[in-house]
Amino acid sequence: MKAYKKLVEKYERIHHLSHMQSIVYWDQQSMMPSGSSDARAKAMAEFGVIIHEASVDKEIALLLNDAMGENLNAIQKASLREMQKTYTSNTILPSDLVKAQSLAHSKCNHTWIEQRANNNWKGFEPRLNEVIKLSKEEARIRSEINGLSAYDSLLDLFEPGMKSQTLDGIFADVKTWLPELIQNIVEKQKSQTFIKPQGIFKIKAQKELGVKVMKHLGFDFNKGRIDISAHPFCGGVPEDVRLTTRYDENDFVQSLMGTIHETGHALYEQNLPQDLLALPVGQARSMGIHESQSLFFEMQMGRSGEFLKSIHPYIIESFGNDEALALDNLVKIYSKVEPSLIRVDADEVTYASHVILRYEIEKALINGQIQTSDIPDMWNDKMQEALGLNTKDNYKNACMQDVHWSEGLFGYFPSYTLGAMYAAQQFNTVKKVHPNINDSIANGDLSQIKSWLKENIWSNASIYSTDELMSKATGESLNPKYFKEHLENRYLFN
Amino acid sequence: MKAYKKLVEKYERIHHLSHMQSIVYWDQQSMMPSGSSDARAKAMAEFGVIIHEASVDKEIALLLNDAMGENLNAIQKASLREMQKTYTSNTILPSDLVKAQSLAHSKCNHTWIEQRANNNWKGFEPRLNEVIKLSKEEARIRSEINGLSAYDSLLDLFEPGMKSQTLDGIFADVKTWLPELIQNIVEKQKSQTFIKPQGIFKIKAQKELGVKVMKHLGFDFNKGRIDISAHPFCGGVPEDVRLTTRYDENDFVQSLMGTIHETGHALYEQNLPQDLLALPVGQARSMGIHESQSLFFEMQMGRSGEFLKSIHPYIIESFGNDEALALDNLVKIYSKVEPSLIRVDADEVTYASHVILRYEIEKALINGQIQTSDIPDMWNDKMQEALGLNTKDNYKNACMQDVHWSEGLFGYFPSYTLGAMYAAQQFNTVKKVHPNINDSIANGDLSQIKSWLKENIWSNASIYSTDELMSKATGESLNPKYFKEHLENRYLFN
Ligand SMILES: [Zn+2]
Ligand SMILES: [Zn+2]
Repeated sequence: MKAYKKLVEKYERIHHLSHMQSIVYWDQQSMMPSGSSDARAKAMAEFGVIIHEASVDKEIALLLNDAMGENLNAIQKASLREMQKTYTSNTILPSDLVKAQSLAHSKCNHTWIEQRANNNWKGFEPRLNEVIKLSKEEARIRSEINGLSAYDSLLDLFEPGMKSQTLDGIFADVKTWLPELIQNIVEKQKSQTFIKPQGIFKIKAQKELGVKVMKHLGFDFNKGRIDISAHPFCGGVPEDVRLTTRYDENDFVQSLMGTIHETGHALYEQNLPQDLLALPVGQARSMGIHESQSLFFEMQMGRSGEFLKSIHPYIIESFGNDEALALDNLVKIYSKVEPSLIRVDADEVTYASHVILRYEIEKALINGQIQTSDIPDMWNDKMQEALGLNTKDNYKNACMQDVHWSEGLFGYFPSYTLGAMYAAQQFNTVKKVHPNINDSIANGDLSQIKSWLKENIWSNASIYSTDELMSKATGESLNPKYFKEHLENRYLFN
Repeated sequence: MKAYKKLVEKYERIHHLSHMQSIVYWDQQSMMPSGSSDARAKAMAEFGVIIHEASVDKEIALLLNDAMGENLNAIQKASLREMQKTYTSNTILPSDLVKAQSLAHSKCNHTWIEQRANNNWKGFEPRLNEVIKLSKEEARIRSEINGLSAYDSLLDLFEPGMKSQTLDGIFADVKTWLPELIQNIVEKQKSQTFIKPQGIFKIKAQKELGVKVMKHLGFDFNKGRIDISAHPFCGGVPEDVRLTTRYDENDFVQSLMGTIHETGHALYEQNLPQDLLALPVGQARSMGIHESQSLFFEMQMGRSGEFLKSIHPYIIESFGNDEALALDNLVKIYSKVEPSLIRVDADEVTYASHVILRYEIEKALINGQIQTSDIPDMWNDKMQEALGLNTKDNYKNACMQDVHWSEGLFGYFPSYTLGAMYAAQQFNTVKKVHPNINDSIANGDLSQIKSWLKENIWSNASIYSTDELMSKATGESLNPKYFKEHLENRYLFN
């Protein structure tokens, strides 16, 4: 076990360095004044090289080889497997490329914040183009080693084992039933009226409500915080989770559900096995599984009448007793389906359309079938086709709405819809194990849900493959039928 | 110039790494939840080693040697001198000691925050003892190389060129006139009554007032922020200055002046020469000179009737027009002299007593004449002697009031009183150059002051030695008589 123990030390060191990087990244997004962005970009790039160097340390290769012959238990074997995968993935890229990417991402991110506000695609395009160029170079290098297509070699970074061939199949299936389902739901909801809550909903009150709900969900404020950023995320480290959200004084409903979503991510992080936190095997299984936790809380549970009933008193406490804030009215608001431009504000039914559109564009970009300059028109065409919406000259609410591509996150978007599918399948199992789960939720008792998730998802970290994890937890591999059933049950047969 | 240019690259890299460290340190003090302190301490310790390794890089020694023979201009020569001094100072310590110190400081700092609140010396003492042990080890190693006494070898880190022999002389002189001066001022002020402003002064209003005053002083909010921490400091990096302060809803006067103080530090940082920021020569000259800038703004200018007149409208705007907030009443409050326990709340007359007490204790600790356990009694004895105050069993407001020793900052305290002396001498020169300066201040015109400081102090960074800097700026070396004159003029002859 000598080599394995040395590997653990190496990864503990990397974990400490990542801690620094995560906190500084959080600061960049939520605290940093804009005039400091150039100095910060340089510091982050320099530090990116240091972390890269630590993770491509040649001694790790030798130790991985030696550890293969050691007598390891099952978890240590899984740990070694994840170290091997991480190391191989990290060593493929030359450090010059990593440094160039880190700098390009920081600069593009900053430009995105500025130019999105100005709806200025032309001011943003050159920075994005630089990021895409570097991501294509990354994909080319990865493909040469792992034999995957350019796009699949990036997809594998976020959803290990997933291929675009499989995704093409799943998404083709979704496309056969989703447009009709959306149409039917929109038709059905025409007769359902609700009252739109009228602000002002003070940010202070929204913050306090968010904190109450996060506590109800079990977020540990002794090891985490919530702040504001342009694009909400769950950052920091498992020992110090930094959530961010954004508030709109005219509308609290989106922000509240956004906070519940990010809390789902945070609970996964805060409940990863403490003794494995520093190791690759101790990290979240995949982006899709991560998203399944946020969507478990936001979609499967959060928008249900039962859950809304349990947090309704907090809402009244914060904003007073108003007919627009009546429980049945809020349930209608939170299950409203309506084609719209912004992914993060989309309901869970139309959401998949947003993801499929991005998947198709980014796959074509990385595989070299289209250029950066093609994005706005292609976006408009696909948006027309999927949801009947025009985005011409509206960059801000179309191809400039997401931060992901600015940060070189190509292959990430499919995780959102995979997450929705994993979550539906997980919730379906919880309902089988605990037939009265909806009553518990309504009564504010989340202990059964959290025990199930802790035992079946959180505490397993990356010990199993995604397929093994889902099979052990739910009795079968990913089966998108639970997602379709969930949408039909909630929105059509309710 | 090949070697010098390579050195510049090396120090730019270190500058970028220090950027990460400074932001994470700021986060630790102002943002981090307490449950995350262990993980953070480990991360900071690991990173401390990386910065240490970068700054003791053996290639630097070779390059410094080569650069000595290169054709450099005056600033490059000064730059090389500062690189040499920094490098020598950094290479003295083994990286194990640096790592142990970083961890001990983080842990002691966290314990200090917790146990100070509990007035628990016994809970704090073992952590402080560990820090002192490591600082003595540091002093021992430094002494062996530079031939200074143990304490002087630490003092030199903060106030290069200063010796305890000189300080003993200066402080002995101060002790001959300060007690009588305090007594005379206290006697004189007995007949001066003022009205204590009665809260609540809402934190939000105090924050807004602070920001207005910072803007008046010229703080660049595009490259900096102000937040809250237990012990106010000026952190971050010159490109992103992070001030912190603390608020008390019952009293805004201390916090406001604290903000002005920290803004003085911040202006120095924000106005260092942009092209030298990454280099040792581009950094603030010494802690004493740094403090001279904060005290220039807080004491020489900030508490003057003229300055208070200029910001009086902001105060009224924030808290309403109340007789306790009348200008002449505020002037009395801000020039009140009264022996008290807390250094950071002390007036500028009794402040020197606080510093001399700490100087004497820390010198004895580092030189091995007393033990950690002797601190509380020694504190009480000296406080009785200097200001007639008893601190028995009152650790919180005595030897546990400052964060400095928790962070291993031995040799730092003298800088405060040196800073007060430098500031008095600088202001005396400004008055000679601009005889109507007090009218300008009263009219809210700080342009002459800021031009003088920018030209004579800020833009010179560490190009000259402290003595050269003061001589060029004021026409003579440090002369404590200006400090004594200032105190007498403001408090006795006014
Ligand atoms: Zn998410
Ligand atoms: Zn200061």
